[in-house]
Amino acid sequence: MSKYAIGLDYGTNSCRSLIVDISNGKELASHVFNYPSGDAGVIVQKSDPNVARQNPADYVLGIEVTITEAIKKAKVIDSNFSADKIIGIGVDTTGSSPMPVDADGNPLCFSEKFKDNPGAMVWLWKDHTSYEEATIITEQAAKSRPEYLAKIGGVYSSEWFWSKLWKCSKYYPEVFDDAVSFVEICDWIPAVLVGDTNPLNIKRSVCAAGHKAMYSDQWGGLPDEEFLNSLSPKLGDMRKKLFSKSYPSEEKMGNLSKEWAEKLGLSTNVAIAVGAFDAHMGAVGAGVGVGTLVKILGTSTCDVMVMPNNENLADIPGVCGIVDGSVKGGYFGIEAGQSAVGDIFLWFVNNLVPDSYGKTIDEKFKNLEAEATKQKPGESGLLALDWNNGNRTILVDVRLSGLLLGQTLHTKAHEIYRALVEATAFGALAIIDRISENGVPINEVVNCGGLAMKNSMLMQIYADITNRPMKVSRSEQTPALGAAIFGAVAAGEFTDVEIAQKANDWN
Amino acid sequence: MSKYAIGLDYGTNSCRSLIVDISNGKELASHVFNYPSGDAGVIVQKSDPNVARQNPADYVLGIEVTITEAIKKAKVIDSNFSADKIIGIGVDTTGSSPMPVDADGNPLCFSEKFKDNPGAMVWLWKDHTSYEEATIITEQAAKSRPEYLAKIGGVYSSEWFWSKLWKCSKYYPEVFDDAVSFVEICDWIPAVLVGDTNPLNIKRSVCAAGHKAMYSDQWGGLPDEEFLNSLSPKLGDMRKKLFSKSYPSEEKMGNLSKEWAEKLGLSTNVAIAVGAFDAHMGAVGAGVGVGTLVKILGTSTCDVMVMPNNENLADIPGVCGIVDGSVKGGYFGIEAGQSAVGDIFLWFVNNLVPDSYGKTIDEKFKNLEAEATKQKPGESGLLALDWNNGNRTILVDVRLSGLLLGQTLHTKAHEIYRALVEATAFGALAIIDRISENGVPINEVVNCGGLAMKNSMLMQIYADITNRPMKVSRSEQTPALGAAIFGAVAAGEFTDVEIAQKANDWN
Repeated sequence: MSKYAIGLDYGTNSCRSLIVDISNGKELASHVFNYPSGDAGVIVQKSDPNVARQNPADYVLGIEVTITEAIKKAKVIDSNFSADKIIGIGVDTTGSSPMPVDADGNPLCFSEKFKDNPGAMVWLWKDHTSYEEATIITEQAAKSRPEYLAKIGGVYSSEWFWSKLWKCSKYYPEVFDDAVSFVEICDWIPAVLVGDTNPLNIKRSVCAAGHKAMYSDQWGGLPDEEFLNSLSPKLGDMRKKLFSKSYPSEEKMGNLSKEWAEKLGLSTNVAIAVGAFDAHMGAVGAGVGVGTLVKILGTSTCDVMVMPNNENLADIPGVCGIVDGSVKGGYFGIEAGQSAVGDIFLWFVNNLVPDSYGKTIDEKFKNLEAEATKQKPGESGLLALDWNNGNRTILVDVRLSGLLLGQTLHTKAHEIYRALVEATAFGALAIIDRISENGVPINEVVNCGGLAMKNSMLMQIYADITNRPMKVSRSEQTPALGAAIFGAVAAGEFTDVEIAQKANDWN
Repeated sequence: MSKYAIGLDYGTNSCRSLIVDISNGKELASHVFNYPSGDAGVIVQKSDPNVARQNPADYVLGIEVTITEAIKKAKVIDSNFSADKIIGIGVDTTGSSPMPVDADGNPLCFSEKFKDNPGAMVWLWKDHTSYEEATIITEQAAKSRPEYLAKIGGVYSSEWFWSKLWKCSKYYPEVFDDAVSFVEICDWIPAVLVGDTNPLNIKRSVCAAGHKAMYSDQWGGLPDEEFLNSLSPKLGDMRKKLFSKSYPSEEKMGNLSKEWAEKLGLSTNVAIAVGAFDAHMGAVGAGVGVGTLVKILGTSTCDVMVMPNNENLADIPGVCGIVDGSVKGGYFGIEAGQSAVGDIFLWFVNNLVPDSYGKTIDEKFKNLEAEATKQKPGESGLLALDWNNGNRTILVDVRLSGLLLGQTLHTKAHEIYRALVEATAFGALAIIDRISENGVPINEVVNCGGLAMKNSMLMQIYADITNRPMKVSRSEQTPALGAAIFGAVAAGEFTDVEIAQKANDWN
């Protein structure tokens, strides 16, 4: 008899659920929900392009809509399927996306007092308002706690937990002072499903804590109070209210609450896994293992690798993080990434490609690729840098910008397109080189996402430039697939993720 | 009673005649003739983008069509005008544009033997096939004749006389060996009008010889035989057949031949001035004088200045040439230039501006300018280099290419357009700085050409970046106007160009 797990995947603009058959790894049905708030789910501010917030009410609504609809579809697709065969749910989200909550774990933006206050919302991963705070954290840590920096590549980012909390304390002191805790949304959504959002009870994700909040067992958890006080006494105070332990996603957060079980037509025996970030669960969905880099290739990329945690792994300068258990148990999870890939191509096509290449974006991409494919490497003489949205790994600088050189009076748009593709491939190579030179083997790359599936020229150029096989994940929804695997592990169906990965040829 | 002079201006794609009233400087009538041969007048080769040749038959046809039609128009415009009041003709052309001729000065490409041979045609100024020869000439001169290089900015160009002759001797030996001489078209066309093209009788232009053929009284004319033999014995041999003296355009080449006088309905008393390059005569048309840089602003630019020749003028590194009398008598003529200006904007609009800016090239330019004008300097963070067609002054390297840096995911086409305009302005400033730092004052710039007239944003940016007043010449055909002034001087109407310039507020 088949058993099923659900993966819940929370992206920047939408969330999706995916029902997976645990007995054979097949994806049965899925449903996508576009966040109703803001601009495609993101609350922005005209006066400051760095602002990116989210309304957590969208997430709660997303649970109900995506699971209910996916179950309906599954029943149509397979008459043997029934909701009571669902045994576990895993949740992955963007991050670092923390939000301030009250003593019960309710988002402060749900309260009457703060309902229109952007500081009380979710500080989405791509909110860059705290770039000054990030710079000071980096400087201060370099002086007094170099070990904190070593594990995250040497630079603390404005996209991360402490930068955002500090900025909140300065720009929205009324919010910060009322906050009893801050919770990453990858921790909050599983807690909602379990029915206990009390911040002291939530099992916090080691993936979020380790990669973004400078958490490590090596120094007893979060950064010490003295260090945080040296930034701001408010951060030192907040540390006392946060958490002292974090968990891998193979751990169960709890069972599905009665309220949600009734709402979704599921059993209260359903296990809810501790949450993690999309790229990390996506890596599991794509079959991450020693020697295999999983690249989530979208508007930007996230690169995820693992190394056995019984080996002595040196710190890797410029790499976003090395965290024990952040991908799967028994392994260090290693995260890197490029700040823009698909976004660069889309920017180019939207802004600098004339209609002679086609009337629609799709036509333009098709014709650009057809023309660019005819060229030999280096034929156009163009060279580009892929820093249009900064450089995440290995320079960790959001202020960097792009470069194109070699233009002549004969330069064509498709030649520039090819140069931009090559630029992102060299960006990928820089990451691969940095990591492999530091003792982590990378023998092949598994690419996930629509760009990898649609663009064979891009994959060939990546293979040529990185001199490694480029594989493309069969699943179009690897994060949700990975989340479902964690749901199954949390339900006790597999001892750990390693065993789960080997049990099925997932999807 | 009014007297008139004709300016004949030979450009890259067309030629024009302009009838000017000498008594008041007004332009009466003009006519343009598009060259019928090749691709808009240029014979190109698909296999080699460096090839650019011209058919001299187009020039001869151009004399007849443009003068006949301009006279017709002048009669309609002013009933007091009659062709017998025309007293002089001046001729300006592109250059260095040499061609091989026989003992009578007939172009070899007019012969049955060479009629389809591109080596026997005019080697147009922008023919870059001889870039290797130019490099060797520079190296050889640096070693053994540094004084030759000093007067032309330190680098000999593939656009110039000796590079082209040498290349011809290697790639078209059958042409070179039959050639009795090589003649610049600025020398050949006046000789055609005079009816004597015997290369030994042609008064060669000091402008062409001095700026492009390393001619100087300082070392007795053309480069010495020993030096030319060190490049190739064929060049040493050719030197003997060329010329030993050159002339300013205030000099008369001769009177209009009987044959041409009949054909055009003019008198055989009409004086034909020695020819010169378009930019140099254009500078006179625009009012060049000490402290005034004249910028011919088109697809590329040519910058022309003068300094009294009784002052001690140092060589200026990187500047195309310093030649006594090349612009007007009593002055050193100084030539510099940018390899591409209008061409860069046209390339950008043709290749990288989407139709959202307009359906036609004109609409796109208009909207780009409107949007770019709203920006503050530096607002976009973009920085460009104007090297898309190499850098003529001050680096003298045709192999250089363009650069754009500072792109983000928000960069718009009009921001890049503004960066390109700024790049050409900084290119202009680099020239101004180099020249003024070497003792030639530049207090103002007079701009000629359609770009200067149409694009007020461009002129404002140039004024801001160079920190000098930008004036725009009233005439849209300053080279032809300048040529007419030389025609009048050659006819004896004015003692010299200096006096002619002061006699009228030309146009």
